[in-house]
Amino acid sequence: MFIAETNIRVRYGETDRMGYVYYGNYAEYYEVGRVEALRTLGWNYKEMEDSGILLPVYSFGIRYFKPAYYDDLLTIKTMISERPGTRLPFQYETWNEKGEKLNEGETTLVFISAETKRPCMAPEGFIKALEPFLQG
Amino acid sequence: MFIAETNIRVRYGETDRMGYVYYGNYAEYYEVGRVEALRTLGWNYKEMEDSGILLPVYSFGIRYFKPAYYDDLLTIKTMISERPGTRLPFQYETWNEKGEKLNEGETTLVFISAETKRPCMAPEGFIKALEPFLQG
Amino acid sequence: MFIAETNIRVRYGETDRMGYVYYGNYAEYYEVGRVEALRTLGWNYKEMEDSGILLPVYSFGIRYFKPAYYDDLLTIKTMISERPGTRLPFQYETWNEKGEKLNEGETTLVFISAETKRPCMAPEGFIKALEPFLQG
Amino acid sequence: MFIAETNIRVRYGETDRMGYVYYGNYAEYYEVGRVEALRTLGWNYKEMEDSGILLPVYSFGIRYFKPAYYDDLLTIKTMISERPGTRLPFQYETWNEKGEKLNEGETTLVFISAETKRPCMAPEGFIKALEPFLQG
Repeated sequence: MFIAETNIRVRYGETDRMGYVYYGNYAEYYEVGRVEALRTLGWNYKEMEDSGILLPVYSFGIRYFKPAYYDDLLTIKTMISERPGTRLPFQYETWNEKGEKLNEGETTLVFISAETKRPCMAPEGFIKALEPFLQG
Repeated sequence: MFIAETNIRVRYGETDRMGYVYYGNYAEYYEVGRVEALRTLGWNYKEMEDSGILLPVYSFGIRYFKPAYYDDLLTIKTMISERPGTRLPFQYETWNEKGEKLNEGETTLVFISAETKRPCMAPEGFIKALEPFLQG
Repeated sequence: MFIAETNIRVRYGETDRMGYVYYGNYAEYYEVGRVEALRTLGWNYKEMEDSGILLPVYSFGIRYFKPAYYDDLLTIKTMISERPGTRLPFQYETWNEKGEKLNEGETTLVFISAETKRPCMAPEGFIKALEPFLQG
Repeated sequence: MFIAETNIRVRYGETDRMGYVYYGNYAEYYEVGRVEALRTLGWNYKEMEDSGILLPVYSFGIRYFKPAYYDDLLTIKTMISERPGTRLPFQYETWNEKGEKLNEGETTLVFISAETKRPCMAPEGFIKALEPFLQG
């Protein structure tokens, strides 16, 4: 399995009147997690998009166990456990500094050709970069 | 089944560089949908919270079929199909003006007592208000 | 002076841990105000952009007098008091249901040609639509 | 003058359909800048708030010179040039990696007692921490 960890400091505007990070903001946190995970693999999401491959999100799911609070330094753990085809599934976990798992979730992204607007296969080089992590 | 419909006009800041509504923003759209759905039932979410019952989101899932664009006038269809206990499950659909279903999802909220911070039963009156829609 | 009023219901995710609407969210509220103001004049901001005229914000200023709270139904009052040239200045006020003015501000937008990426004059038809409100 | 620098990586959801960082998001970037600036001085904004001193924003102004783009690594330069009384004025600049100044702005925050809800003086220790930077 490929695993990457990214830190995110909770911003004031990301909290809500309960004092919790608003539940919708984790979509953005997970996105930061996967972009930094790709960067670790030598893949820049922006360059991929500029080269004509879009990666829109097809599905997103999340279960919330505990809230995050303002100024918490969170760790987003991003995982890829399957070889991508036209789809790229990620799993995520959010942890706080006390070692508590706050939530876990998953997204499935789809490789789309910007030209044809249709699903396409993951770039060869990307699959190669992932392979060492996915074997055995 | 209880069904309520709410309109949301897509704001500029809610789009992303693909020109789509950012995938994370639907959490907020769905929340608008369920708050307006509760209002239709005679329940004001703010008053419920001020009276000591919090309703944090326990889980959220969504599948994206088509994107929404800037200035689209969306319809959020919010549905409750089960009698609530300590949990309140909602289903959602987002439709655009062309009659296309853009995405569908669900959230499960948990009734929490602000005092004890523990799950509690849905208020009697709330269950009563829903009952006519859930029978048969 | 041209004046338009738009209602915005405060969303949960727009509040912060103080219980107030986060100060940065008024940029988006003001944008809703000016887009609806343009619509009143028969101008659709999206169509303007699609036709090759961008209107990025050059400057934004705001003074906060009182907070807005969750579920408040706000009125954004949007005003244009000058004939636009290459710039389009707006003034704004946010009012709550109790008749309290919560904040006031202004933005200056610049007409930019999408083709040349340089400032250009406001479209003739737009100036004409505004003229009746700006005279005398 | 007290100066602190903070890096922020632009997130996908912070861009808009023009491909720029949405103009309203700089309020949040500036907030990150000032929170990190306070931390540099040994002051934790969250602890200050928890100890009964709120710091709501009274005014915010910004001039935009150039846009920021997705994945840009921005530097927020946060400055304090005056001894705080009941008000705490900050200046800000946003720079990109090419050394271009993208925007500049300022906020004035007000020290408010959580108990009385009225303006109060800046904490003694905070003024002391700033003093070495403001002299001469």
